[in-house]
Amino acid sequence: MILVIKMVGYPNGSKKHINHATNKADAGKRGMSLEADLNQSNDYYRLNQIAVIHKKPTPVQVVTVDYPSRNKARITEAYYRHPSTTDYNGIYKGYYVDFEAKETKNKTLLPLQFIHPHQLEHLASVEREGAISFVIIRFSSYNETYLVFSKDLFILLEDKTIKSITLKWIIEHGHRCPFRYQIPCDYLTIVEQERMRRLSTDE
Amino acid sequence: MILVIKMVGYPNGSKKHINHATNKADAGKRGMSLEADLNQSNDYYRLNQIAVIHKKPTPVQVVTVDYPSRNKARITEAYYRHPSTTDYNGIYKGYYVDFEAKETKNKTLLPLQFIHPHQLEHLASVEREGAISFVIIRFSSYNETYLVFSKDLFILLEDKTIKSITLKWIIEHGHRCPFRYQIPCDYLTIVEQERMRRLSTDE
Repeated sequence: MILVIKMVGYPNGSKKHINHATNKADAGKRGMSLEADLNQSNDYYRLNQIAVIHKKPTPVQVVTVDYPSRNKARITEAYYRHPSTTDYNGIYKGYYVDFEAKETKNKTLLPLQFIHPHQLEHLASVEREGAISFVIIRFSSYNETYLVFSKDLFILLEDKTIKSITLKWIIEHGHRCPFRYQIPCDYLTIVEQERMRRLSTDE
Repeated sequence: MILVIKMVGYPNGSKKHINHATNKADAGKRGMSLEADLNQSNDYYRLNQIAVIHKKPTPVQVVTVDYPSRNKARITEAYYRHPSTTDYNGIYKGYYVDFEAKETKNKTLLPLQFIHPHQLEHLASVEREGAISFVIIRFSSYNETYLVFSKDLFILLEDKTIKSITLKWIIEHGHRCPFRYQIPCDYLTIVEQERMRRLSTDE
């Protein structure tokens, strides 16, 4: 039995009721707004010496570089590459923290193809080494954000026929990320509970 | 008194006696060969489930993107940005590991300007959170590579007049990275000693 944390007491100042004509996931825009919220939260954590967690730069394959002046390199041909790891990692109270963030406009599920197989492999690898690892999923239609620990996700994915992660399953097995003043996605409150659980079980 | 580990027993198969007309640091090439060695070492660590440590992608500021076909984004104008963190991080036996790698052709010192102030700040931040953090410095003229823990480096840098890190100081306060078969820069053997020290002192 997994406790679902409902931080209903938190004000949700950024709550928007977005009405989309389609509930198809918009791959082009996904992650942008969540990314901004996570960057702001991570800035707060860092400036207040709570944690040091950064988004990794998007990997780019550079093909051609011009040098219009001695010290300025101008890239004139390059392509986005698939990341081989997750987007975010860092340290919180001695724990290595690692996660991927995904946003969808879909109202009932996150298609599993949003998370690359090598990202799942990466989460499994760091979890094995003792990381606190998870996926943060935002349903932008509701502006609700959830944290799902890797170990719970892996139990779900043992069923190889699974094609998506449903919101219903996420509500049951994940944890709602509270919105707080200056911390639009305060996922560390959930990580802290996992840290305390590990300390108490000497895991 | 800090123990300097001399792994004289290790074969140094890649040892080359490079003779450069100048001992000026070559900024354009610095880090390339060390980077290849670190990538190979990290691949070995990862494939053998010893540690999960990755080089972060070089941050690029994308200005213009063309879409010649539906699914292919082609970047046509972009610039390299200064990284705000170190190049490498990951997890080893539950410890968050974070480091920067620098290579110089200079025979006696590493100019301090090779390490950006925000990278030093980042090392201080993660060290405060419990990371094992360090700088790996290669003197390519000798093909010798050293690991210097952040805490030792910070003691040196308390002297604000310091403009460079001398090889003499590095030999005294750092640790020589052994070359091993399949692990051209086996820095984790030194990290392991630090991990054991922390475990024994309950740090």
